[in-house]
Amino acid sequence: MNKERGTSLPIGITMGCPAGIGPEIILKYYSSETGHDRPLSIVIGDKHILAETGRALHLPAPLHSWLPGTPPVADGINVLDLQTPALTGVIAGQPDRTTGAAMMSYLERAVQLCNRKMLAGITTCPISKTTMNAAGYDFPGHTEFLAQRTGSEQVIMMMAGSRLRTVLATIHCALESVPSSLTQQKLRTLIEQVHRALQVDFNICRPRIAVAGLNPHAGENCLFGTEEKEIIAPAVEQARQAAIEVSGPYPPDTVFYRAASGAFDVVLCMYHDQGLIPFKLLHFSDGVNVTLGLPLVRTSVDHGTAYDIAGQGRADHRSLKAAVEMAALIAANRKNNAEGCRGPQSAAEQ
Amino acid sequence: MNKERGTSLPIGITMGCPAGIGPEIILKYYSSETGHDRPLSIVIGDKHILAETGRALHLPAPLHSWLPGTPPVADGINVLDLQTPALTGVIAGQPDRTTGAAMMSYLERAVQLCNRKMLAGITTCPISKTTMNAAGYDFPGHTEFLAQRTGSEQVIMMMAGSRLRTVLATIHCALESVPSSLTQQKLRTLIEQVHRALQVDFNICRPRIAVAGLNPHAGENCLFGTEEKEIIAPAVEQARQAAIEVSGPYPPDTVFYRAASGAFDVVLCMYHDQGLIPFKLLHFSDGVNVTLGLPLVRTSVDHGTAYDIAGQGRADHRSLKAAVEMAALIAANRKNNAEGCRGPQSAAEQ
Repeated sequence: MNKERGTSLPIGITMGCPAGIGPEIILKYYSSETGHDRPLSIVIGDKHILAETGRALHLPAPLHSWLPGTPPVADGINVLDLQTPALTGVIAGQPDRTTGAAMMSYLERAVQLCNRKMLAGITTCPISKTTMNAAGYDFPGHTEFLAQRTGSEQVIMMMAGSRLRTVLATIHCALESVPSSLTQQKLRTLIEQVHRALQVDFNICRPRIAVAGLNPHAGENCLFGTEEKEIIAPAVEQARQAAIEVSGPYPPDTVFYRAASGAFDVVLCMYHDQGLIPFKLLHFSDGVNVTLGLPLVRTSVDHGTAYDIAGQGRADHRSLKAAVEMAALIAANRKNNAEGCRGPQSAAEQ
Repeated sequence: MNKERGTSLPIGITMGCPAGIGPEIILKYYSSETGHDRPLSIVIGDKHILAETGRALHLPAPLHSWLPGTPPVADGINVLDLQTPALTGVIAGQPDRTTGAAMMSYLERAVQLCNRKMLAGITTCPISKTTMNAAGYDFPGHTEFLAQRTGSEQVIMMMAGSRLRTVLATIHCALESVPSSLTQQKLRTLIEQVHRALQVDFNICRPRIAVAGLNPHAGENCLFGTEEKEIIAPAVEQARQAAIEVSGPYPPDTVFYRAASGAFDVVLCMYHDQGLIPFKLLHFSDGVNVTLGLPLVRTSVDHGTAYDIAGQGRADHRSLKAAVEMAALIAANRKNNAEGCRGPQSAAEQ
């Protein structure tokens, strides 16, 4: 048993869109190292899709059927085979309503098994928002779906890597709608949630949180926007009074360099690309998307379905590897820190 | 004579705010290498400020008075000493109306000397927008001031480094105002200007221009915003029909990684932080800000006055070094390419 197996339950990896790169990166992940080096995990998907992908791309596919509540076999790939009806003749790169329905059923089942304490957490492979919507699921993404299914009021998207962590105050909305979506109360709550999550999930007892501004130069004394003065700074001040080590709003163009240099444990970002642009520049291949604020543990690869390269054997499994490892680590941390953070004061000491 | 001295005129370095780090980085730049390794340059500022900075920080300050039209001395620092009245008792980190007026006079003089063909170009040290305004100059920054003084209709801010170049469609405006500031015509013109500037100033005959989207995932088929479909894509298409090698709009969170990996010569960005965040992450210490679309050559350090560290000897001169070298290179390229680009097809071949 490796050290991440502090919890005896496996992480459930959802296969994502059957026509995307999910099946390929799963096979590559399992063939890249031995069972001994991996956290305990199982795959929720369709076994025949994995088998077909293995044949087409000449990848090892030692598939075992797994049933909830039973111990996964030590080597090979344990699959909870959902045997989705009508999922035949799937062509890589060509998603449709049926692949959309299949990928959502993997996710539904994973949530159910987490709720029943039969999984330690979920790591998701990419889905297509378009076919998710076509299959009757009206959500902008995984994150919002999971929030709804678990009755979570405010969830947070965190991108986590070895050099940088970012969290987003707004996610999938047009840039135009960002300024009006920010409120002092929302940011204040977000800072508190991030603080708690870094303590419990990441084992950092006094996390140093940087808050980015919204406007160029963080507004430069209201020359280019007033949100920093009216919304962001008051939220930071409130959180500081609650003894949280938070600072900002910082000029967005330099705060990520400072964080990546070790000055902060996380940067709280006002919008999707503010956080994703620097993150993907540093962690293009090994970044992990973590959903904070859910009752269940959920990590995800930080890339999409990549239909343009699906079926070609060119997909990179390193983000999946990092995501499964992080899910196992968070699950173990949650268990250890259930009665208060036992970790170091800041990540700098880790 | 080194290879950048293809033009016999010097680059004029404006000293920037006398209370900022400009004087310090100038002294550090000149002491970091011999005259033989530097492009020909002179400083426009106040000699006594440079002398005082040298004494306070124990930096060599071999200052020579330079007069326009005369050849700079080979070693040491050639200073066009403006002897600003009332500029006494300047304290590092404490700008006021007088330092504001001084820094603007350096700039006015630099523009005048460029117009009279007595300088090959300008490299600017940082100024304070607040004291610029206090001194009666109502501009958001250097760039806009230079545009007005040279009667240039549309100027472009480019950030240039060895790994990444970005240009901005909007600069110093609140994020809220960005979407309504973008028009198809403006972007079309911008693409053409960038294309021409990369040919003439950077010597790349067929520059590959990537255009970033405005919204998350470049709008993802209008799920999160319509500017990509209505404004950006049509501008890209128009420019393609004019035989420009331009593509996009790309999802903003991955296009910079691709550009830094060599796929594009430049990324055209919709707003300040979209371009500055990735640029400063890769080129924090050696990035250069270039103004395209001016009749004169202008580069700048890509950092601010840094009042918080002014007078402490901690400022880094590498961005100034890169900016002076780039100004000299652009001046030489403009001369060589006056009758059409003679460079390679793309930067990949350089």
